[in-house]
Amino acid sequence: MYTPEYLEKFTINVFEKMGCSTADAVAATKVFIAAELNGLPSHGMLRIKDYFQLWQAGRINVKPNVRIVHESPSTAVVDGDGAIGMIAATKSMEIAIEKAKTAGTGWVSTRGSNHYGIAGYYSKMALEHDMIGICMTIANPVVAPTGSVTPMLGTNPIAVAIPAKSYPPFVADFSTTPIARGKLAVAGKKGEKVPFGYVQDKDGLPSDNPDILKEGGSMLTLGGDIEHGGHKGYCMSAIVDIFSCVLSGANFGPFCPPSVAYLPVLEEKVGEGTGHFFGAMRVDAFQPKEVFLAQMDKWIETFKSGKPAKGVDRVRIPGEPEMEKREQILKTGINVIEPIQKEMKEIAEFLGIDFQLGM
Amino acid sequence: MYTPEYLEKFTINVFEKMGCSTADAVAATKVFIAAELNGLPSHGMLRIKDYFQLWQAGRINVKPNVRIVHESPSTAVVDGDGAIGMIAATKSMEIAIEKAKTAGTGWVSTRGSNHYGIAGYYSKMALEHDMIGICMTIANPVVAPTGSVTPMLGTNPIAVAIPAKSYPPFVADFSTTPIARGKLAVAGKKGEKVPFGYVQDKDGLPSDNPDILKEGGSMLTLGGDIEHGGHKGYCMSAIVDIFSCVLSGANFGPFCPPSVAYLPVLEEKVGEGTGHFFGAMRVDAFQPKEVFLAQMDKWIETFKSGKPAKGVDRVRIPGEPEMEKREQILKTGINVIEPIQKEMKEIAEFLGIDFQLGM
Repeated sequence: MYTPEYLEKFTINVFEKMGCSTADAVAATKVFIAAELNGLPSHGMLRIKDYFQLWQAGRINVKPNVRIVHESPSTAVVDGDGAIGMIAATKSMEIAIEKAKTAGTGWVSTRGSNHYGIAGYYSKMALEHDMIGICMTIANPVVAPTGSVTPMLGTNPIAVAIPAKSYPPFVADFSTTPIARGKLAVAGKKGEKVPFGYVQDKDGLPSDNPDILKEGGSMLTLGGDIEHGGHKGYCMSAIVDIFSCVLSGANFGPFCPPSVAYLPVLEEKVGEGTGHFFGAMRVDAFQPKEVFLAQMDKWIETFKSGKPAKGVDRVRIPGEPEMEKREQILKTGINVIEPIQKEMKEIAEFLGIDFQLGM
Repeated sequence: MYTPEYLEKFTINVFEKMGCSTADAVAATKVFIAAELNGLPSHGMLRIKDYFQLWQAGRINVKPNVRIVHESPSTAVVDGDGAIGMIAATKSMEIAIEKAKTAGTGWVSTRGSNHYGIAGYYSKMALEHDMIGICMTIANPVVAPTGSVTPMLGTNPIAVAIPAKSYPPFVADFSTTPIARGKLAVAGKKGEKVPFGYVQDKDGLPSDNPDILKEGGSMLTLGGDIEHGGHKGYCMSAIVDIFSCVLSGANFGPFCPPSVAYLPVLEEKVGEGTGHFFGAMRVDAFQPKEVFLAQMDKWIETFKSGKPAKGVDRVRIPGEPEMEKREQILKTGINVIEPIQKEMKEIAEFLGIDFQLGM
């Protein structure tokens, strides 16, 4: 088990050695560690290799000029200049928060970025400012619009963080697909079937084969097939795509740049890099702060008071499961599986930094 | 078949006779007619009786003072003063649009309102101002949060309208449940089962019984059970609830006032009336208008170019199915089923206005 501090120091070192400023290395690292602490290792240490290889391939800019290219009192378009996604995203959310301080709300659409890790991290940045934080991003196209078999959309997550008074914040952080793509890979490796409603085959027929993407299949949007409301998940995913990419001038939908170096750069571009969307709303732009926070407490108490379904111990508020995992991980330390440790060791050796296996 | 003009004149008459100003009667009527023209009769003439009975019961205010009670440059809280939902909502969206003209975006959370019909109507108000329109509302609590059997949420729809250049706008208008509640009623009357994933029984076990709500069951959120991502639909529905009600000071979740007079006024209140949330974003607060509109055209062309699934004629953009229905209905006229015609005739006789049966 690794301590957060150990992995933090390692990750900062990696990004500094790649050429990032210390401030940028620290900003990026925070998001990787937050993923591990939230029990989302798919967005933690696992991704360091992706960024390392993108850097080796010259596909990210470690000295980016992340800047506002268009703005109004409550909005901005940020150009990430090819930055590591976490750096472009952190600066974009900071701009949204600054805008909200004077305009009541702030909304930033970002282009020229890359994969930014967990969406929830940026939405939670608003909380300490007594603001609601909102965050969306596109991702590699593996999801077909309802009625189609052509993958055009990513798992396109949405995150919304809302502060309360005596309770931990409400934090929703969810993809607009029934499951994360990683779950398919896990089921495939185990030789298991997946429930119907996750994927379809190359003709758009129902499938329970987790490896169907390798055979021309595609993931379905949240809801699954049209009978179960999949077209509503398509709407949500499309909204994420348009807010993140058409508002900013990034590569929308199927033109999303690959987040891994083993996939080639796409020949056709319709914009600059990957796109995200950020929002910050001051709660006192709507209600006196204390009134809002007290009412959120009442909201949380009301929803927690619901009768649990059979086999469920208690009703949870969005964000609670992740918080429970975090408390657990803070006690036990962070488990990095052996194959990932080996990748980290290789990167460490290449860059001439320390990394201890088997902690 | 009725012409839109005939039903429009009738509906304006009804609201005027109830005591609404002509301007308010016209504003409300537009939403009812839009529902019929979009092929959503569940939110059209069918609902006139509901409003008529709420008026008879003294549960709506026909002379409301709809007003801003709190604001910042980009936000406002509107108190609907017990108005007909369509009137409070139309004014709230107008305020969001006005805010966006100067601040780039405008966001309004509304309390003291009532059921407002189709969400898509208000989001589309933004289009003629070259803005993106957003709209959400709560509804009668019939949906259980994931892991619970207590109905706490409504079908809580979200609507987003985005302008394009040469194509009709992108208009997503969808509930955060797999289906609208009305579909259960229809299946129940026909004695049919419904697919698993729509509802659960009183213990939270899967059910295919459309009448299960009468036996202590509840509707599931978009996604269905947790295995299919129902907790993501719960997140969306909860966000709609908090934005509409906690930001405004309306009755959230299970405290949503009934939209029909045959259900009693709830004893416990946690705010004022029903809540909605509205947003307007100027496209030129992000991109030069022509650049944005041309890119939306490219987005629409890209998504339309996807290969259709087996049995699907072509891939559709959100809003297209409703538009196809609208074109059809504008040709044929509006079909009002006989039981609804009879209700309209009774209302007409009570109020001393004309209504012709069997058109």
